[in-house]
Amino acid sequence: MMVSNKVCENGGEHVGLLPATDDDHGGVIVDIEEAMDAKVFVTLLRDSISKWRQQGKKGIWIKLPIGLVNLVEPTVKEGFRYHHAEPTYLMLVRWIPETTDTIPANASHRVGIGAIVLNDKRELLVVQEKSGKLKGMGVWKIPTGVVDEGENINEAAVREVKEETGIDAKFLEILAFRQSHKLFFQKSDLFFICMMHPLSSDIKKQDLEIEAAQWMPFEEYAAQPVAQDHQLYKYIAELCLAKEQGEYTGLSPVPITSIFHKDLSYLYLNSQHLNQSPVSSDQS
Amino acid sequence: MMVSNKVCENGGEHVGLLPATDDDHGGVIVDIEEAMDAKVFVTLLRDSISKWRQQGKKGIWIKLPIGLVNLVEPTVKEGFRYHHAEPTYLMLVRWIPETTDTIPANASHRVGIGAIVLNDKRELLVVQEKSGKLKGMGVWKIPTGVVDEGENINEAAVREVKEETGIDAKFLEILAFRQSHKLFFQKSDLFFICMMHPLSSDIKKQDLEIEAAQWMPFEEYAAQPVAQDHQLYKYIAELCLAKEQGEYTGLSPVPITSIFHKDLSYLYLNSQHLNQSPVSSDQS
Repeated sequence: MMVSNKVCENGGEHVGLLPATDDDHGGVIVDIEEAMDAKVFVTLLRDSISKWRQQGKKGIWIKLPIGLVNLVEPTVKEGFRYHHAEPTYLMLVRWIPETTDTIPANASHRVGIGAIVLNDKRELLVVQEKSGKLKGMGVWKIPTGVVDEGENINEAAVREVKEETGIDAKFLEILAFRQSHKLFFQKSDLFFICMMHPLSSDIKKQDLEIEAAQWMPFEEYAAQPVAQDHQLYKYIAELCLAKEQGEYTGLSPVPITSIFHKDLSYLYLNSQHLNQSPVSSDQS
Repeated sequence: MMVSNKVCENGGEHVGLLPATDDDHGGVIVDIEEAMDAKVFVTLLRDSISKWRQQGKKGIWIKLPIGLVNLVEPTVKEGFRYHHAEPTYLMLVRWIPETTDTIPANASHRVGIGAIVLNDKRELLVVQEKSGKLKGMGVWKIPTGVVDEGENINEAAVREVKEETGIDAKFLEILAFRQSHKLFFQKSDLFFICMMHPLSSDIKKQDLEIEAAQWMPFEEYAAQPVAQDHQLYKYIAELCLAKEQGEYTGLSPVPITSIFHKDLSYLYLNSQHLNQSPVSSDQS
């Protein structure tokens, strides 16, 4: 059992406390990994909260792996609420001071990509899906997919095109994005329309989700009746055409670093326009 | 108790089933709202799963309000895993067919905004925050905030500027955005840099999170030492300058509708360039 036994500062008595690490916002994170009896847990939790309150801690986070589901009900009964969950764990939180709760919100958006892959013959890479609202309607659409947690948008676009159609493609830029709400339970959704250049031509479709895949003349894609009912289809065709004609600039990724964060991030910007105006700290 | 009693199709015997509605992907969603004994629940759940299996259902979703926390452990013991959670409920899911699980991922990204509010005197609206990694370092930064679930990015930018500084501002366009990973637990993060035009000038700062707020000459902002260590600061200054000089185009929101979704969405695109090339279905 991962319990630290410490001398209690204000009494000299030995008490057990839950293992916890400080966060950057005056709170603590409890990460329990091994099985624990619910009654033992509640005793430790109460003693720990009393200690954290003395220390002026604010948000108390408890991460429970799904194997410790027996501790969920006791934690809620001690005043915690759900914060977020992933397949393998549930995160609960409680704000212990008298001040206003500033617990940050959970992840709120799913992120998806749509890939415009246009070849030199002005053919667009399109698919028909096996499920979803357009199933069985004969609608050809660009490959789409969900950006995984921790995955870069540009890499997700390359991966989805490869998975669904077998085509290797190079990411060029983001032409546009759509924000929608309540598409998936109550969550919001960001859908990035990516311009890609194909590096191969032989289609090998994925069977699980894709009914059919082909290279389709651009004008046939744009002329589909669905484009009349569904503005996003019309815009995808317009964006593709504007980009092909060389008039349109979207946002392209530039790697950036920060002293506060070791992982590389990408900043998507209009690089064609930004490079014209460098700024330095001595500029007036 | 919200239990539907139906005649069991293959036996003629009366059995209780959990209340469920079909989703768009061949699954069902169970939404239990009233208190239920855990043993009764397990019996109903087992009978229901057996029925759904006969019907060829795929993903089974169970939404449990936090008041029904007593049903979490029994649900997990029946083979369900966590999918997502919000303060007031936990969503669990189980894939019942033999085929490959295609349960969609949970929301993966937090979405934030940073607001560049530049006035006619070339002063930038800046704040110092009371918490976070820059606390107490004397760094002036643009107002930032989290986009709520269900909130439009452009509206979030207006709200955050008003909340933190009391300034009314008009949203102009998104100049760039950053995608980062693992900033908040394991979640990813999208940060949209928004260009805004101020509609008022008297600052009235919010006390809870903001230490100080002011209008700062642009060059002073750009000359802060933090801009040397933290590339995002440098880019924010460059983007602001490029936009002010009229060379830069970002993405601006256009409302779009869909026959599949009643709520309005926004498509953010480079409207300056797209309008030059309309496409219609009869274009060759």
